[in-house]
Amino acid sequence: MQEVDAHIERVKKLIELEAHVELKEFINDMNISDVAELINEFVQYTLYLFQLLESQRALAVFRILDLSNQELLLKSLPPNIRLKILNELPPDDRTALLSELHSNAVKDIIKDLNPEERKITLSLLGYPEESIGRLMTPDFIDVRLDWTVEQVLTYIRDYGKRSETIDVIYVTDENGKLIDDVRIRNILLVDPKSTKVEDLIDGRYISLNVNDDQKETVNVFQMNNRVALPVVDDTNILLGIVTIDDVLWVAEEEYTEDIQRIGGTEALDEPYLDISLMELYKKRIVWLIILFLGELLTISAMSNFESEISKVVILATFIPLIISSGGNSGSQAATLIIQAMALDEISIRDWWRIMKREIKSGLLLGGTLSIISFTIINIWHFFSPVFGDHHWRIAFVVGSSLIGVVLWGTLMGSMLPLLLKRLGADPAASSTPFVATLCDVTGLIIYFSFALFFLRGVLL
Amino acid sequence: MQEVDAHIERVKKLIELEAHVELKEFINDMNISDVAELINEFVQYTLYLFQLLESQRALAVFRILDLSNQELLLKSLPPNIRLKILNELPPDDRTALLSELHSNAVKDIIKDLNPEERKITLSLLGYPEESIGRLMTPDFIDVRLDWTVEQVLTYIRDYGKRSETIDVIYVTDENGKLIDDVRIRNILLVDPKSTKVEDLIDGRYISLNVNDDQKETVNVFQMNNRVALPVVDDTNILLGIVTIDDVLWVAEEEYTEDIQRIGGTEALDEPYLDISLMELYKKRIVWLIILFLGELLTISAMSNFESEISKVVILATFIPLIISSGGNSGSQAATLIIQAMALDEISIRDWWRIMKREIKSGLLLGGTLSIISFTIINIWHFFSPVFGDHHWRIAFVVGSSLIGVVLWGTLMGSMLPLLLKRLGADPAASSTPFVATLCDVTGLIIYFSFALFFLRGVLL
Repeated sequence: MQEVDAHIERVKKLIELEAHVELKEFINDMNISDVAELINEFVQYTLYLFQLLESQRALAVFRILDLSNQELLLKSLPPNIRLKILNELPPDDRTALLSELHSNAVKDIIKDLNPEERKITLSLLGYPEESIGRLMTPDFIDVRLDWTVEQVLTYIRDYGKRSETIDVIYVTDENGKLIDDVRIRNILLVDPKSTKVEDLIDGRYISLNVNDDQKETVNVFQMNNRVALPVVDDTNILLGIVTIDDVLWVAEEEYTEDIQRIGGTEALDEPYLDISLMELYKKRIVWLIILFLGELLTISAMSNFESEISKVVILATFIPLIISSGGNSGSQAATLIIQAMALDEISIRDWWRIMKREIKSGLLLGGTLSIISFTIINIWHFFSPVFGDHHWRIAFVVGSSLIGVVLWGTLMGSMLPLLLKRLGADPAASSTPFVATLCDVTGLIIYFSFALFFLRGVLL
Repeated sequence: MQEVDAHIERVKKLIELEAHVELKEFINDMNISDVAELINEFVQYTLYLFQLLESQRALAVFRILDLSNQELLLKSLPPNIRLKILNELPPDDRTALLSELHSNAVKDIIKDLNPEERKITLSLLGYPEESIGRLMTPDFIDVRLDWTVEQVLTYIRDYGKRSETIDVIYVTDENGKLIDDVRIRNILLVDPKSTKVEDLIDGRYISLNVNDDQKETVNVFQMNNRVALPVVDDTNILLGIVTIDDVLWVAEEEYTEDIQRIGGTEALDEPYLDISLMELYKKRIVWLIILFLGELLTISAMSNFESEISKVVILATFIPLIISSGGNSGSQAATLIIQAMALDEISIRDWWRIMKREIKSGLLLGGTLSIISFTIINIWHFFSPVFGDHHWRIAFVVGSSLIGVVLWGTLMGSMLPLLLKRLGADPAASSTPFVATLCDVTGLIIYFSFALFFLRGVLL
């Protein structure tokens, strides 16, 4: 990080001094990731800095720039350079970029692609938004069973430049159906002349279907120790490959969506500082209104107990404490269960085991808080007699309510994500604020029921 | 998934029929990931199923089994087979396994390693828990500047079997200092006889320091499009490499910790169903007690307003609605900011831009809820005059409190993660329940202050 800061200082000075030659030399000597960071930092000089880059490096930098800078460059670069960049982008990156741009910008850009590139882009665009088809690149190396390793190596030498990866080679039949994959290491470890491709295959390949959900890929890569996986259609014809570096981004997006849902907001599709204020407002207000309407039920619940509150005002004092304890324990449980489901540690079939665990956990957690509150209320009474003569009764009501509320919160928090999953919804939609709101309403009812039960005839 | 279920059915029947030969044939024909899933499913047959596997496949399956099954197998397998598995595990996987096992089990196992393996394992174990050193494998291919590509290919053929990956080859000097890395594609694309290693390097390698934090690696891999990165010490000597498939697991662990912290619980180090009830209790109760003690402040806050509540009991009715609206908007803001920080979209320097955005957002969000509540209270009054004659005054107090509380919650939620980061703490520790608790206390004060201001002389 310090290094980057030093770079930034240096570039600032060079820009001020208009020292073009030195600047050009300097940024062409940096790592591409540092150059990208630099360009993202100096938004007003994006075009200027970018045009100083050597053409091969420019492409590499472009691929990792922020979306807003990519859009800016596509609009402002001279047409011939724009075309060059778009034509040389790997098809999967280009598709990702195009699907993020505004649709008018996309039309203009696709128009400029050469016919072959356009065909690839459009065919990639035909697959659903979250499908593997959108992630794959059709640039791979495929060979035949009866080739010798020497033939394969010559073929790679001739056609490998275009391929996204040559770490894995694919074996197909004359119809393009996938037979197997062979890692380049296995090809390099044998004698090239005497070994044929058919000697290297073991028939144990893993493939992805073009219509599968992108979420699945992360698991498949984790479990199978591959850097690339083949993508086939329903008739097993090899259409493209997915490389592991693209999967890192998918995983990040998945987790981001989950975290944002758990926090009680619609998933933002853009970085926080790039999204417009109105978009940000729309993403947030929906859930706030839903939660607000849910919370209105607390008013109905409370108005049933108005006469109790007017008799024992001190009861109102404990409302925030009681309902938030339920909400907090519910949020915890929901988070643990949502996350365990996302990692495939638990499934719906485990619901009974989970429920048993959460009943025990809820009793332990509620019991602990109950003991703490009982102790504190009685100690508090020594210093300030705010709870009146019946302080031990109040302590008893609060303590037993806490056990009930925490147990209930824990059960709601753990079962709701499972129920949502069972109904085909996203478990992460049972966000922590949502669980907390449910616990508010039920917490009030539990609390006042305990109060009525223990205080009737005494204070009520 | 249906395929796996079909496998499970089949294996169940074969076990019942004691058809060992068919069973052996069947599971040796499956993908290793399916076999692993099968073994994880049939815990009581772990040892039996595992011993049916051919020796090379057994190793591959072992690597991806659940930790509890790995531990079980290490304990129950005959010593010679256990030794074989441990000796053949890639060092990074073995280190990961050993650091998860109970320390007594580890001692027994390390004792069994051959001296060379033990040395590697212990040296790997010397690096801090979350450092890159724990992730690296010392099995890589390094070559010299003056070798021809033909020499390199011969060297790979002789020593490549032992290497974790040959997708990238490293160039070092005679002291083992890293000079550059070369992708295998670049080696395969040139004429082997006339090209030397020095013709292939460009000096633009990216390396990791052995003491760096593992979190950093995910970003480095995303930005640089590599499948493996070299690990060096402070004097630039090449110690090992980190492969991208290991990074997928690091990313998953990071996100899981973040999500669990945001949900208000200590990060679990084990799968939900594997962790003992007491461990689960300990991880959860700490935060619940902290939040509970924080929530006790609401009692102090409320007791200041006891006389107001006794005069206008209806005021108590709105307490849950008001404070939870603050908590919900605070949770949203905290989640968005924590996540944007995790993705490096924002940094502490942006605090003023964020604050300006959140003030605007808070006013918009609070304003919307305020209008809704004002409308609902006045409509409600038509059907049930629970709010009395002063319903519009009450509506005004509630509405204006909502703007104040939501604005305050939004500001707290967005600034707290930044503050924690500034103080060197984990921003994710400002969990949604934590923010909600802070908003409860302040929300009460805001609400009753507005009530006093607008109702003094009328109802109070």
